[in-house]
Amino acid sequence: MSYNLLKGKKGIIFGALDQNSIAWKTAERVYEEGGKFVLTNAPIALRMGQVDLLAKKTNSKLIPADATKLEDLENLINNTMDIFGGKIDFVLHSIGMSVNVRKGKHYTDLNHDWMAKGWDVSAVSFHKLMQCLYQKDAMNPWGSIVALSYIAAQRTFPNYNDMADNKAYLESIARSFGYFFGKDKKVRVNTISQSPTLTTKVPGIGCAVTHSPSPERTCNPPTLS
Amino acid sequence: MSYNLLKGKKGIIFGALDQNSIAWKTAERVYEEGGKFVLTNAPIALRMGQVDLLAKKTNSKLIPADATKLEDLENLINNTMDIFGGKIDFVLHSIGMSVNVRKGKHYTDLNHDWMAKGWDVSAVSFHKLMQCLYQKDAMNPWGSIVALSYIAAQRTFPNYNDMADNKAYLESIARSFGYFFGKDKKVRVNTISQSPTLTTKVPGIGCAVTHSPSPERTCNPPTLS
Amino acid sequence: MSYNLLKGKKGIIFGALDQNSIAWKTAERVYEEGGKFVLTNAPIALRMGQVDLLAKKTNSKLIPADATKLEDLENLINNTMDIFGGKIDFVLHSIGMSVNVRKGKHYTDLNHDWMAKGWDVSAVSFHKLMQCLYQKDAMNPWGSIVALSYIAAQRTFPNYNDMADNKAYLESIARSFGYFFGKDKKVRVNTISQSPTLTTKVPGIGCAVTHSPSPERTCNPPTLS
Amino acid sequence: MSYNLLKGKKGIIFGALDQNSIAWKTAERVYEEGGKFVLTNAPIALRMGQVDLLAKKTNSKLIPADATKLEDLENLINNTMDIFGGKIDFVLHSIGMSVNVRKGKHYTDLNHDWMAKGWDVSAVSFHKLMQCLYQKDAMNPWGSIVALSYIAAQRTFPNYNDMADNKAYLESIARSFGYFFGKDKKVRVNTISQSPTLTTKVPGIGCAVTHSPSPERTCNPPTLS
Repeated sequence: MSYNLLKGKKGIIFGALDQNSIAWKTAERVYEEGGKFVLTNAPIALRMGQVDLLAKKTNSKLIPADATKLEDLENLINNTMDIFGGKIDFVLHSIGMSVNVRKGKHYTDLNHDWMAKGWDVSAVSFHKLMQCLYQKDAMNPWGSIVALSYIAAQRTFPNYNDMADNKAYLESIARSFGYFFGKDKKVRVNTISQSPTLTTKVPGIGCAVTHSPSPERTCNPPTLS
Repeated sequence: MSYNLLKGKKGIIFGALDQNSIAWKTAERVYEEGGKFVLTNAPIALRMGQVDLLAKKTNSKLIPADATKLEDLENLINNTMDIFGGKIDFVLHSIGMSVNVRKGKHYTDLNHDWMAKGWDVSAVSFHKLMQCLYQKDAMNPWGSIVALSYIAAQRTFPNYNDMADNKAYLESIARSFGYFFGKDKKVRVNTISQSPTLTTKVPGIGCAVTHSPSPERTCNPPTLS
Repeated sequence: MSYNLLKGKKGIIFGALDQNSIAWKTAERVYEEGGKFVLTNAPIALRMGQVDLLAKKTNSKLIPADATKLEDLENLINNTMDIFGGKIDFVLHSIGMSVNVRKGKHYTDLNHDWMAKGWDVSAVSFHKLMQCLYQKDAMNPWGSIVALSYIAAQRTFPNYNDMADNKAYLESIARSFGYFFGKDKKVRVNTISQSPTLTTKVPGIGCAVTHSPSPERTCNPPTLS
Repeated sequence: MSYNLLKGKKGIIFGALDQNSIAWKTAERVYEEGGKFVLTNAPIALRMGQVDLLAKKTNSKLIPADATKLEDLENLINNTMDIFGGKIDFVLHSIGMSVNVRKGKHYTDLNHDWMAKGWDVSAVSFHKLMQCLYQKDAMNPWGSIVALSYIAAQRTFPNYNDMADNKAYLESIARSFGYFFGKDKKVRVNTISQSPTLTTKVPGIGCAVTHSPSPERTCNPPTLS
């Protein structure tokens, strides 16, 4: 069903990799509801995934950007505003990655360089993205910026490893930057934690993700893209 | 008043700089209650502060350690266990620093290299410390590890800047590592958020801290050491 | 704008009194989106308010019910299922009343009989309502039951008086009954806390309600109907 | 071990029934630490339990009081201040009772008169107690009032039944009255939720309570006295 809820709305969607990505499903629904968007992901993720198929299907442009690099984010935002001829209405940040998870390191035996890498990709990228959007004044009033979080940001899910800490940092950024974006630009900043979701192992990413009947009991990490 | 509550207990106290440090006051009280401890701080902080006075007053050893360096932490823990002839009972992590705060950068205009530095000092150091303690099996059962946090970890305090995000990460580490330390070693891991506190500008640190009657209204950052 | 989002959905809306009621505004929007509903309120509230106007405008039946009386609730649900020829999809519980607030009693000097009355109307009515719906199996799977709460249920808003405690009880009922309604009937139970809202003094109710720029600072009770 | 921590402190302890009561254990420890107190419980509970043994052991007076009756509470507080020759320093409210739990009613099939009775005993009694203490100005500055709560006040524990809702109301009272008691009298008001505890079925009370390894998974109601 489609209700044309997003007619006339323009945005950017980060993190679609393949059909199992939450960002992929979100992009399909946004398209159905009449929204337009630019798709983006890291260059390496674009080579591994099938985002070009999604771009064709949704009649969208695909602009590579490493979300840890300010210059890539600036380029992405500039191009997006050129494409749409003005400011944008929504941004979805669906980015997460832990090298420690990928490499199977236990939380009591982490590699701290990998910890820093995952933190930069999964959490700091959200601050960099918002700082660019804010400084370029790229968002329309009452626009919406959403990042995907996980309940492990707030309660203990031992197997979610350092991604739990990254999501806690991400949610704190949402609170901190949300204050300024709301007050100064009338833009909403939120994070969403999905319900238990059946996802699949992402090839080449190495995070086995299985169905969890209850987020209270076992670890159910969202797809790391 | 002293009740001898900590008679026979041995530990490590991080972060005492001068009489205004929470760690300094804590060390004095632990001493009064019969506890023994090693004092530690970063080499540069030791040069700036007066921790040697506290060491004399409390009859404690002073061992420099950069809490961002695993080898310094290992050396500290090894020496502490040598001094006390066995495992330890308590650790206080009272470490926090934001270069962005020091340099007066606004939250919407952060330097992300400085963000990474503050995160490493203020939050990751807690993981590194616990990972060392855990792997060396350095804590007695029912021992206690405490880090100082701040309510800005959980609610929006706009002026606390990226320290809010660092404290959110710190609290997440406490939850994540606390699960394993509790289950495997019967050691408790907690963070404490102080009540509104009258502290003073720390010379050379540059964080003006003033009395706040209510943590709900205004930013009241704890001393950054 | 209307998107036909609720086409084919049938429900019950409690608590519309006049145009300033949240329930009134909700009913108007539900009607615009294609939903059908029965309106209900306590007999005394119906005499004081203008709900018959809303019923005409939205082509709805109006069935009086004292939400503190099980027999009234049973009659309401039976009649509603007769009207719609089957089970229902949504229920809005927008009911709140404190005699202590009305009479200007301070929280440190409450009348406990009035406290019991307000608790029965504002909170227990939600349990009674759900118990009737559950036992009659009156909700369609994936239906939704929503009660209006307020942030004072979770944080201290001194002027909200015993309504804060009533809302805390209401939210607990939502958690407790939501577990069984979800597991047994696939029905969702939630409470919603409004943002700061400009409402007006409700004649005859006596709760002065004024605009609050920030729910963190001052009390902003929702309209008590 | 005893440290004389409560030397010179005087208070009231509600809810000791037998050796399995948390209030009983607390009274023993307070006595060991040098505190003095009046013991109290409902007349019927006094007949069923062995509180007179505890009174002898701790050299305490035993004053019956139905905590749902303001006149009983006033009499209790007046007598306590007479006994100690002045204001008091601490109060422990360890009172909880659900007729629905006792009678084995399921949460989806509650008797609402019993619900009201349990709410009055378990939650409103705390407001009545504090209102008496506040209006009589019976507490010394920096005194402490503590009620026993349970994690079910904040998260869903289906088997805890309407006691969950009662504890949610109790915690809200603590927040609401704590604001005024703190601001006006410098008295602290808190609730404490115990860790998982091995208790036993209380004869005549009918609440089977078993050991729970984790409060996250199963219901572990505290002793209902």
